[in-house]
Amino acid sequence: MREEWNGFTPHKWDKEVNVRDFIQSNYTPYDGDESFLAAPTQATKDLWDQVMDLTKKEREAGGVLDMDTKVISTITSHGPGYLDKSKEKIVGFQTDKPFKRSLQPYGGIRMAEKACSDNGYEVDPEIAEFFSTHRKTHNAGCFDAYNQEMRACRSSHIITGLPDAYGRGRIIGDYRRVALYGIDRLIEDKQAQKDSTGRVMTDDVIRLREELSEQMTALKLMKEMAASYGIDISKPAKNVQEAIQFTYFGYLSAIKEQNGAAMSLGRTSTFIDCYAERDLKNGTFTEEEIQEFVDHFIMKLRCVKFARTPEYNQIFAGDPVWVTESLGGVGVDGRHMVTKTSFRYLHTLENLGAAPEPNLTVLWSPRLPEGWKKYCAKISITTSSIQYENDELMRPVHGDDYGIACCVSSMVIGKQMQFFGARANLAKCLLYALNGGVDEVTKKQVGPKYRPVEGDYLDYDDVVAKFTDMMEWQADVYVNTLNIIHYMHDKYCYERAQMALHDRDVLRYFATGVAGLSIVADSLSAIKYAKVKVIRDEDGIITDFETTGEFPKYGNDDDRVDEIAQSIVHKFMTAIRRHHTYRNGLPTTSILTITSNVTYGKATGNTPDGRRKGQPFAPGANPMHGRDTNGAVASLSSVSKLPYNDAQDGISNTFTIIPGALGKEDKVFAGDIELELK
Amino acid sequence: MREEWNGFTPHKWDKEVNVRDFIQSNYTPYDGDESFLAAPTQATKDLWDQVMDLTKKEREAGGVLDMDTKVISTITSHGPGYLDKSKEKIVGFQTDKPFKRSLQPYGGIRMAEKACSDNGYEVDPEIAEFFSTHRKTHNAGCFDAYNQEMRACRSSHIITGLPDAYGRGRIIGDYRRVALYGIDRLIEDKQAQKDSTGRVMTDDVIRLREELSEQMTALKLMKEMAASYGIDISKPAKNVQEAIQFTYFGYLSAIKEQNGAAMSLGRTSTFIDCYAERDLKNGTFTEEEIQEFVDHFIMKLRCVKFARTPEYNQIFAGDPVWVTESLGGVGVDGRHMVTKTSFRYLHTLENLGAAPEPNLTVLWSPRLPEGWKKYCAKISITTSSIQYENDELMRPVHGDDYGIACCVSSMVIGKQMQFFGARANLAKCLLYALNGGVDEVTKKQVGPKYRPVEGDYLDYDDVVAKFTDMMEWQADVYVNTLNIIHYMHDKYCYERAQMALHDRDVLRYFATGVAGLSIVADSLSAIKYAKVKVIRDEDGIITDFETTGEFPKYGNDDDRVDEIAQSIVHKFMTAIRRHHTYRNGLPTTSILTITSNVTYGKATGNTPDGRRKGQPFAPGANPMHGRDTNGAVASLSSVSKLPYNDAQDGISNTFTIIPGALGKEDKVFAGDIELELK
Repeated sequence: MREEWNGFTPHKWDKEVNVRDFIQSNYTPYDGDESFLAAPTQATKDLWDQVMDLTKKEREAGGVLDMDTKVISTITSHGPGYLDKSKEKIVGFQTDKPFKRSLQPYGGIRMAEKACSDNGYEVDPEIAEFFSTHRKTHNAGCFDAYNQEMRACRSSHIITGLPDAYGRGRIIGDYRRVALYGIDRLIEDKQAQKDSTGRVMTDDVIRLREELSEQMTALKLMKEMAASYGIDISKPAKNVQEAIQFTYFGYLSAIKEQNGAAMSLGRTSTFIDCYAERDLKNGTFTEEEIQEFVDHFIMKLRCVKFARTPEYNQIFAGDPVWVTESLGGVGVDGRHMVTKTSFRYLHTLENLGAAPEPNLTVLWSPRLPEGWKKYCAKISITTSSIQYENDELMRPVHGDDYGIACCVSSMVIGKQMQFFGARANLAKCLLYALNGGVDEVTKKQVGPKYRPVEGDYLDYDDVVAKFTDMMEWQADVYVNTLNIIHYMHDKYCYERAQMALHDRDVLRYFATGVAGLSIVADSLSAIKYAKVKVIRDEDGIITDFETTGEFPKYGNDDDRVDEIAQSIVHKFMTAIRRHHTYRNGLPTTSILTITSNVTYGKATGNTPDGRRKGQPFAPGANPMHGRDTNGAVASLSSVSKLPYNDAQDGISNTFTIIPGALGKEDKVFAGDIELELK
Repeated sequence: MREEWNGFTPHKWDKEVNVRDFIQSNYTPYDGDESFLAAPTQATKDLWDQVMDLTKKEREAGGVLDMDTKVISTITSHGPGYLDKSKEKIVGFQTDKPFKRSLQPYGGIRMAEKACSDNGYEVDPEIAEFFSTHRKTHNAGCFDAYNQEMRACRSSHIITGLPDAYGRGRIIGDYRRVALYGIDRLIEDKQAQKDSTGRVMTDDVIRLREELSEQMTALKLMKEMAASYGIDISKPAKNVQEAIQFTYFGYLSAIKEQNGAAMSLGRTSTFIDCYAERDLKNGTFTEEEIQEFVDHFIMKLRCVKFARTPEYNQIFAGDPVWVTESLGGVGVDGRHMVTKTSFRYLHTLENLGAAPEPNLTVLWSPRLPEGWKKYCAKISITTSSIQYENDELMRPVHGDDYGIACCVSSMVIGKQMQFFGARANLAKCLLYALNGGVDEVTKKQVGPKYRPVEGDYLDYDDVVAKFTDMMEWQADVYVNTLNIIHYMHDKYCYERAQMALHDRDVLRYFATGVAGLSIVADSLSAIKYAKVKVIRDEDGIITDFETTGEFPKYGNDDDRVDEIAQSIVHKFMTAIRRHHTYRNGLPTTSILTITSNVTYGKATGNTPDGRRKGQPFAPGANPMHGRDTNGAVASLSSVSKLPYNDAQDGISNTFTIIPGALGKEDKVFAGDIELELK
């Protein structure tokens, strides 16, 4: 055993790269309450005041305080940056100073230029020229390979939010490996991985070998970057401060090179706690010191910022980074995985105040200890800053070392990743089915020239058959578009830092997504149970509907329509599964939108359920606003009937509740809870 | 029919991109002699004096007159360059002035830096940094994917001259298409090709679609580049001057972006002659004017120059560019394809004087007209500047619109290309077979740990069995190394300009090559027919041999050894065919070295045939120097018995002859003739 590991119980983790085994062999479940927690130190308060001051200045400056326009961001492109070096216990910024957004053109030079110009900056013309002429980008690659149909689907928004003009994100490096093993050991491991590939040099093997080389380069650069802060991460972390610092340097490397749609952290608190417990026991650090490390770490995560385009902000309102950290959950051996450091992470919401980032996500189980449940409830009520996800549903699939990327995408840390897939607009697909592939807004033939519906009234069986055909077409274009996107992302914007902290052979989820589920369910219900008359415009295109009579609406625990919703999800996923996926990715789908449903709605015409053209969709798997009239439980029940097997990337339900509804009036409670119903 | 085509006979070529069909429908075979040819104009003489003056200055400057160190070469990177604008009838240089070598770092930034520093120049540090950090190169990609075994084989020279540090070359664009169709039509054609790919986006389809986009970009840039010279190539060429100019602009685009080991021109003379005949008939131009266009064209081709490294020059001595132009031959309809312009091309060797470039290559057939045969003989004798290749052997395989890339590699113009493959050192492979994979020079275990030979005397059957096994291993490493090289060349240094002038679906030859054939044949003959005693060094490695008795030697028309040579070629090719090849390339091999055999010999120890360590190999399929004691015909006969089916990329024989040997004493005759024996 290495000296840095003194006091830890060996098992398999000391002989192979296996963080989960380390955690399971060494963590101490905590069943108590929050009374042990320490208040912020003066240094923490001072530093946070600085952050708040910079935040204010940033707001005053119109949203961006400073941008790099000359230095292309890499792991080692910038010298060290500090708030106040003398006070920071955990160090490291994306550039050489806080709140300065980095320049990341690999994903697309036009995006980088737009992000700058939108904020009054200009990318150095030589860099712009270089990336236009000599160094192709992900974005340029995608558009070089797209066909006309894909471009048309993109423009008409029947497929929406494709990650061809922004980083795909949703890849979580196992940043803990840096702390547990140190970089040198990880490089050795990668070399062994490279030496173990097959000798027949197929394209796949060549790509893998090149990627492993890139990963090794990233690891070497991480060491250099840490050294610029005076910290040696070649060897394992010696104590909890180093464990946090090394883990953060791993994460920092990732965000220095990737501006992904979600740059999530993983599941670090119980790992860190192993060090905290040992150091407390040894008297190396006090509770106050450890909380200070955690506070400074979280403070850094709150300062993660990217240069983004107006288009991006339209899809992902509120400039989210999705620094998602998964807390708690239960181990496969039955022990819960809540530790004192789980508490310490949540406690930052008190020490530093409420904040949306990092996206602290509690993996919920009835078997979690009471003290933790109560503390979560308390912090939820006081800060509205916690996301909950169902560990009971995910643990059987993923075990006990998975994490959430973005808001609901679960993956085993260091062993699985996701090709993120944006969304298919199912509401528009239904309208295409009615109009034989003609877009109801632009009047262009976008989809296949199938027969449109005839007559004045919609017939349920006819519409379902046409919708099924159109969904098959949509799935085809969608998957093939994603195939191009992920091919090009790997080619021009490969996540070497994140993948360096993965195993050699990872499971790649090929994620897709749907939007407008409740609209389609209610529309089909209207066609089936009420009478829907179509209104055609002067070109014969159906652009509106007159619905007479009552029909059951999704969100009221009524199987007549809930079964329609379920069958749509199943049919869509079946259509997706029919296609070739890049790198044999495992196809999944999500029913998930949090803010983008507004944008999708804008591009979609009137629907038979009574929704007007341009009106927002309901978020995720939510019932349409106001239609769930049977109460909260019935509404949740409709959502919970959706088949998880057909939506393994997650189902989200945005649920707002007033304390009175729960029978308590403790405090005023506002905001949304993202309810993970997986 | 377009106006520019007035006077031409339509057939298929006017409806589809089909240059061969145009030629066959429009060319005029010429059966006369050279008496019609015109002397150089004053402008030609003046310009050539300028070139000779620059050549002198270049030599005085140590081999390089000027190098670009700041502008990365693309089709449009440089403004127009001239010798003397008022006198040049055909214009265009690789950079903005003659004899200034361009900077081409896509193949490898270290190569570009080395090429510069070797000549006292320094690549702009920002460019060097950019290509090290943000824009990966072919060279870097190869080394990222190589395994230890490949590196070892490369270092020990059992596989030699791999195009991982220089451009692979051996791709001939159909530059004539620019003249016949103009760029706009070619772009339309490429767009149609792109629209016709499959809709399932596998990696192969995505790559193809991206390549087609890159090709269209190249075509657009060609138009821009031509416009900078005041010439509009968007439409077809109107006359012979434009036909030559447009064809040259196509070629110029290729050499502006690719520094390939061979940048051959194709088969242009009979194509050009269609325009020349029409213009002569119409009185548009005189013979003198047409010869001037040809002279100026050839002059430009003589000025093609690249920045190259000392390592490259070691393999390819004499700074060759292999601007190979294939002349003559016979059509599949039986008409010979010699035209007046074929004469005009050869006549440049008189008007401008002898020169190795462009590599004027006569496709030889007994059915060529007498006047042409005599003129070829005359020019060969006076200039030693003609290469001959066997049209009778190649026409049945390739038809009548193939050309030679480099020195012997034949391919149908615009329909086939080659992945160039360097060479397997068979002589060293034989020594590895004896020593169980241990290198006889470095004493390192490079090959597999097979059993070495035992005892003091070599047994033929034992050695053949061991050599066969070792050759199987060598072929495995070799093909897989090439798979990496060509994957990376496509990825980082794709020949978009050349491929833009190809059909969508090309046949890709996966070329390999062998060196040291005659050494192995003679060595095995010695083992079989004489007595070969091995001498081991202190480590037990066989490093020398004592051969007693006589044995038949390859090159004397003696089947006892010639059959050994044939079986080696067959076994090697069988071993090559066993492997997966990149993009399903069609495996071929060549027995071809012209100068590199010297380098290969340097790296190879003593061989059982009596050749001493470090001594050069014989070039190509030649017998070892001095061993062909039965006369020229017997020597040629041995070579000609080698199986073409197993060496379809070509077999070369370097043959020196004094006029007396042919029974004539016309003039002093010196130099080598490359005899293509395919």
